[in-house]
Formats: sequence, structure tokens, C-alpha cells
Amino acid sequence: MALDDPQAAVTDASSADDALAARYGADRPGAILWNDTVAHLLAHRTVRAYRADPLPKDTIETLVAAAQSAASSSNLQLWSVVAVTDAGKRSRLAEFAGGQKHIARAPLILLWIADLARAKLVADDAGEPAEGFEFLESFTVAAIDAGLAAQNAVIAAESLGLGTVYIGALRNRPEDVAALIELPPRAAVVFGLVVGWPDETAPAAIKPRLPQAAVLHREVYRLETQREPVAAYDETARGFQVSQGQDAVGWRALLLNRGRSAASLNGRDRLKQALRGLGFALR
Amino acid sequence: MALDDPQAAVTDASSADDALAARYGADRPGAILWNDTVAHLLAHRTVRAYRADPLPKDTIETLVAAAQSAASSSNLQLWSVVAVTDAGKRSRLAEFAGGQKHIARAPLILLWIADLARAKLVADDAGEPAEGFEFLESFTVAAIDAGLAAQNAVIAAESLGLGTVYIGALRNRPEDVAALIELPPRAAVVFGLVVGWPDETAPAAIKPRLPQAAVLHREVYRLETQREPVAAYDETARGFQVSQGQDAVGWRALLLNRGRSAASLNGRDRLKQALRGLGFALR
Repeated sequence: MALDDPQAAVTDASSADDALAARYGADRPGAILWNDTVAHLLAHRTVRAYRADPLPKDTIETLVAAAQSAASSSNLQLWSVVAVTDAGKRSRLAEFAGGQKHIARAPLILLWIADLARAKLVADDAGEPAEGFEFLESFTVAAIDAGLAAQNAVIAAESLGLGTVYIGALRNRPEDVAALIELPPRAAVVFGLVVGWPDETAPAAIKPRLPQAAVLHREVYRLETQREPVAAYDETARGFQVSQGQDAVGWRALLLNRGRSAASLNGRDRLKQALRGLGFALR
Repeated sequence: MALDDPQAAVTDASSADDALAARYGADRPGAILWNDTVAHLLAHRTVRAYRADPLPKDTIETLVAAAQSAASSSNLQLWSVVAVTDAGKRSRLAEFAGGQKHIARAPLILLWIADLARAKLVADDAGEPAEGFEFLESFTVAAIDAGLAAQNAVIAAESLGLGTVYIGALRNRPEDVAALIELPPRAAVVFGLVVGWPDETAPAAIKPRLPQAAVLHREVYRLETQREPVAAYDETARGFQVSQGQDAVGWRALLLNRGRSAASLNGRDRLKQALRGLGFALR
């Protein structure tokens, strides 16, 4: 599967269409190229029900090796990761994230850090300035590169039979999270990633996404044409919600709820202020 | 390779150690779990030399299906992608990115968009407020989720034998990039991703990364202990630079060059101002 050894893109129209139907519902691409890797990627599901069993030896090193193999902007490597297995710490993190019990239940949460502290250490040791790291640009690079890295860790974890769930809600309380893991100035957790064995008595479902007609544009971006696929997706989302025993509110209602006001962000309207307090100038 | 069908983690100590040696040099983990997916992830390399040959039919739809299968924070799907194949547009983008010829040479660049425009459209159509999307939080979510999505597209592309390179330098000139693809307010390209057939006469190398002792922390973050692995990495980086016919300046010098001043950001010190001009309030 390495670059040297591409997988043949086989014609397996039935498997591919099944995967596309699960990912998109009715409004799906007519055909895609298909191999084991594409099948793996399309089969992703977020796991929130875990067994408490420990992970195999060397799991963390494997996930981090995969993560570090992702691209890094100009090879600056402006991220780090803190692996938290301690049960007391996981309980605190579950509380910080608004009571997400899977953080306390699964054996591991990886905390992905936008890390300008290492760069400042190198600059200070060399007696050099570090003004270039004071801009929104550096936080943005760090957050995006942490995302690329974490996604590689997700793909590796799934290949080992493990499940994952990203925890954005740690941004509700950035200072508390930073204090818990003793972050120095210029470092902040941008998100968490729970890793564990899926509880097979509560299997996770594949969540449908917006039709490609809303998300994928050719040569230029078009906004007005998105109304129709977004409306169609609202129906797909309702069908999924019913299948999961949830209220059939559709997708637009969830989006509108999040966007309604500062208060609907559960503290994340303070993110700029919190990051500044943690040493990111965000100029 | 799906979650239902984990790959056995085999003991193939020799292949794993070869991959770790390429990724880390001497200062590498003693052992990792190993299967085809982990092998693929560790074998990643950035490709900057491309053949001009076109991509197979359905490639773009495949990469976007993989991208949309990545996690999305609260399923908000605050990103879009513009696929640019037009040669004139690719030449302009190459210029905006400081003369990166591979953008003009390869047949495709995917432009990954932090997209709050769709959310605003939905809110306006519903007569609802969208204040919650005016915060730094929403830009951060959009940028990170675009990263998760793009990384899935990279993994899918590599499985098909294609090469990729991320283009952060499009943030040098966000307004010019936005105008070229007719972005509406509240949308900005956070990075590009070139996709094409690697030119096998100019093979890309695997770039070594920082030792895990610098990047991976247990339970708490430690800064001072990073000095030794960072110094060791400087030597690894020098060896790599020599092998590539580059000046053997090490890694710290590159980091210091980027961080030296606002001017060393090539325009990206203006990112906050540029994003505000494009409709992101960043409160």
C-alpha cells in the first residue's frame, strides 16, 4: 500500500456502491475508484461505546509514528501529543468536556497540542528572536498540522481494530485542560482523541454526509447551488436520526442551534481570550 | 481493513525497523505494531516532481468521498473543496504560492476551504441568527476539519499510486486566491493539495521527523527534556540534507529562520487582517 506499490483500483461496483450508500444515502456519486484503503476510509465511524480493556503494547508509539509521518508545514513540527492513560486524569477530562463518559471509560486519550513552546525554547537557547511565531498564522499551522497528524493516528488505530472519537469539547475549558497536563506558555490542546476497543454490543453507525454537490466545486465555488443538495441532505439526516432512535430534526436544525449565539458555543466563544492567556499572541 | 475487519498486527520486525529508520534515523522507537496500513502511513513522502498525465476518471470523487468520511466536529461540515484543473488557474495559483512550479505541472490542485458561507446561507434562509459562527472557534473548527478531510484524501490518493504536496503558501495571498475561485464572504482557502502522478525519474525521499521523545509525552507535558532529542534531530536532519544535496544547516536553523520576524512569514503575518477582509469576524 505504500506509494511504491499502489493497489489496483478494482471494479467492485457492488461493494463501492454499498459504501457510498452508507456514507451519502440516495444522493451519492455514481462511481468511485475502489481498493482496500478506500474501503477502510469510507467505513469510518465514530465510536463512543468502549470496552475498558487495555491497549496492546506499543500501540501509542505506533499511532504517533503514523501521526509524525503526515505532512508538516515546512517541516516545522509545531505540534506535540500528550498520551493520558491515568484514570483520575481521564475522569477530569471527561468532566471538562461536558461529561463525555467515553473519555473516562476508554483506556487512552491523546491530547493534540498546538505547540509553539518548543520553537520558543529553541529560539531562546540560540539567543534568537521568535516574533514570527506570534501571529495567527502559527496557531493556524499548528492546529492544521495537528489535525493531519491525528487523522493518520485514526487510520492506524482503525487498522488495528481500535475505535476513536475526536473531542473538540476540550476547547470549552482550555485553561483547565492545560493546567491538568502542565502545559508551559505557548502550548494549548486543540482537541482530544479517545482510543479504545469498540464495545461490540453497541455498534456505531456510519453517519451520512452532505452530497458532493454541496461540498465539491469545480474551478470556482458556488453558494446558491448548494440549497438543493442541502435540503436533500436534511431528509437523509432525518432518516439516519430515526434509525438511531434520535429526534428527526434534520441537519440544518443542528447547524442553526450551534450558530445561534455566543452562548451556544459552551464556552468556546472565549477561545481567543483563552489562547491569549495561554501565551498565543494571535497577532 | 475496515473497522469490522482489523488487520493482524504481524511481527515483521525487519520491515518495521526499516520504515522507522527512514522516518526517524537512529533515534527511533524500538518496536511498533505493523500491518499494511501502518506501512502505508509510514511510507508517506511529499512529491514535488510530477508527470503532466491526467488523472483516472472518478479520481476527484474518490478523494472527496474519502475526505468526507473523516470525522467532522459535531457534524457541522464547515469545509468545502474546490478542484482546480484549469491550466491558467493553476499557473496563477503557482504564482500566488511564490512560484511553486509543481502546482502548474500536476493536473489537479484541491483547494480546501474554511467555509462558514454555507452555514450563513442556511441561517439566512431560515431567518435565524448566525452569531455563533463569528468566533475564532468556528474558523478553528473549519481549519482543523479541513485538515482531517484532506489527510484522508492524501491516504486515498497514495493508495492509487498518486503523489501529493500540501501548499500552505496559498495563505501568503488569501484575497487573491479567494478572488480567483470566486469565494463568497465567510470562505477562505486554508491550504491547497496538489495531486498527480509522481515523476519516477525524480523520486521523493522520506523526511525524518523529531524523535518521539520530543513529541510524545506521558500524562504531563515536559519542555526541558526536549533539548536532547531536538539536538539529536539536528544531526539527523543534517544527514538527510546532505543526502539530498542540500546545505547541511540542520533543523533548528530552519525553524529559527521561519520565526525570526513578521517579514519571514512571506505575507502570512497579515492572515488575521486578510481573514477579516474575507468575512471572518474572529471574535
